[in-house]
Amino acid sequence: MNPSARLKPIGVFDSGIGGLTVLHELMRLLPRESTVYFGDTARVQYGNKSETTVQRFALEAAQLLMQHGIKFLVLACNTVSATSLTLLRQRLPVPVVGVIEPGAQAAAARSRGGHIGVIGTAATVESGAYQKAIAAWRPEANVVARACPLFVPLVEEGWTRHQVAEEVARIYLSPLKAEGVDTLVLGCTHYPLLADILSLVMGPEVNLINSASEVARVVRDELERRDLLGQASRPTHRVLVSDGPERFSRVARNFMGEDLGPVELVAVPAAAAVG
Amino acid sequence: MNPSARLKPIGVFDSGIGGLTVLHELMRLLPRESTVYFGDTARVQYGNKSETTVQRFALEAAQLLMQHGIKFLVLACNTVSATSLTLLRQRLPVPVVGVIEPGAQAAAARSRGGHIGVIGTAATVESGAYQKAIAAWRPEANVVARACPLFVPLVEEGWTRHQVAEEVARIYLSPLKAEGVDTLVLGCTHYPLLADILSLVMGPEVNLINSASEVARVVRDELERRDLLGQASRPTHRVLVSDGPERFSRVARNFMGEDLGPVELVAVPAAAAVG
Repeated sequence: MNPSARLKPIGVFDSGIGGLTVLHELMRLLPRESTVYFGDTARVQYGNKSETTVQRFALEAAQLLMQHGIKFLVLACNTVSATSLTLLRQRLPVPVVGVIEPGAQAAAARSRGGHIGVIGTAATVESGAYQKAIAAWRPEANVVARACPLFVPLVEEGWTRHQVAEEVARIYLSPLKAEGVDTLVLGCTHYPLLADILSLVMGPEVNLINSASEVARVVRDELERRDLLGQASRPTHRVLVSDGPERFSRVARNFMGEDLGPVELVAVPAAAAVG
Repeated sequence: MNPSARLKPIGVFDSGIGGLTVLHELMRLLPRESTVYFGDTARVQYGNKSETTVQRFALEAAQLLMQHGIKFLVLACNTVSATSLTLLRQRLPVPVVGVIEPGAQAAAARSRGGHIGVIGTAATVESGAYQKAIAAWRPEANVVARACPLFVPLVEEGWTRHQVAEEVARIYLSPLKAEGVDTLVLGCTHYPLLADILSLVMGPEVNLINSASEVARVVRDELERRDLLGQASRPTHRVLVSDGPERFSRVARNFMGEDLGPVELVAVPAAAAVG
């Protein structure tokens, strides 16, 4: 492997701000890797859109990140992973990892009784991607999935420890509690910020699976396996958005409790038709 | 006026589904007008996006509706009205009406003491458009505005009479109650569906201004003034969306409690640069 390839950045893509939880875990586990994050804030949110539209947006985002010379692409968005992973693997010359397989594998491995709950956006839940991925690792597992459309706006409002969020969580999670799930997959990159409330509602005996930390481990293993691990002494971190860089910086500060540095505004290139 | 011009449809544009409240009022007040509704569901929601991006999307939507031969354009979206009305009036060969001026005028006229509250999306509130429009009609009015980002997702979840919606309303509206507003402008086309809860929280002595019904009256007056009133014996109503027609039909049924008929999927044309 050409050593310069190892110094190229890892691309991280989300429809908006949620993927910062994945970026955060990547930077923690792989402190010598450079990164380029793209949040498609002009067209966020993806969670209620059709598969075809999400695939088109994902292809355009991947092209943008390829123009920034990435060596590896992380789909830090459950909706994109559920709908577009296979397509992007076919189309891109770099390895692509999504958040669903790592989360599904961890859930299958850690569930005691095989009763697994999955929560996510409508698009993620309706795609059945978690259900399929968990079945591949643990065919006898009983998987119950539930869309939780209010969780993303609650997190973006900053109400992550708010009484309203707890009440909404009790409503959304009650069918999963009734099914007796022992493991709950947080199938949306915003949800780790609600972990305290989700854990309170589900009870201490239920495992919460945070895909963000799972995916960081998978990225590290894949980079190692392909001899692509970076060893930059001064890694760089760029953040690109398709709309509202100031707003993104502000929400990111509330969201992650840390400063991102400069956020750059970019235009999304039009992709070739998805076929 | 050429009589065939009168038979052309009225175009109604929203970022998604909220503008159906305006369409509903138009059809009630003007039963002999044909309509073409466009919901830009591929790029919804607009409420957290920048002015430049919303203007670009609005121009593309207007071009699409012009291709459908409209005689009049209604911006049935507060975010679009707040950011793009002037631009669209400059660029389009047909009259354009937004939802802000009619709502502001009604609030200025009906407020007893001139203490007026405005609620809307972040983009609408930050634009200051209601504040300016109310001041034009009633310069001494005291206007207090507040963004309510959770109301749209609550309505789209169908929780319009839910205890959670009431609790969120109490939190959002408490600064407006503390200011003693006597009139509250529902500055987002989704909010009329929360009217029962908003009225409960604000108290019976506070006027709620529903822009949807105000705008329908303004459209009727403008059509009359320009000799453009339609008298179709069998008016037609088309609904176009840029993504997910089935989902739109389903949400519309929950949202409006009525069936829309067929919803057509269309591609949004690229607009010329906004300059």
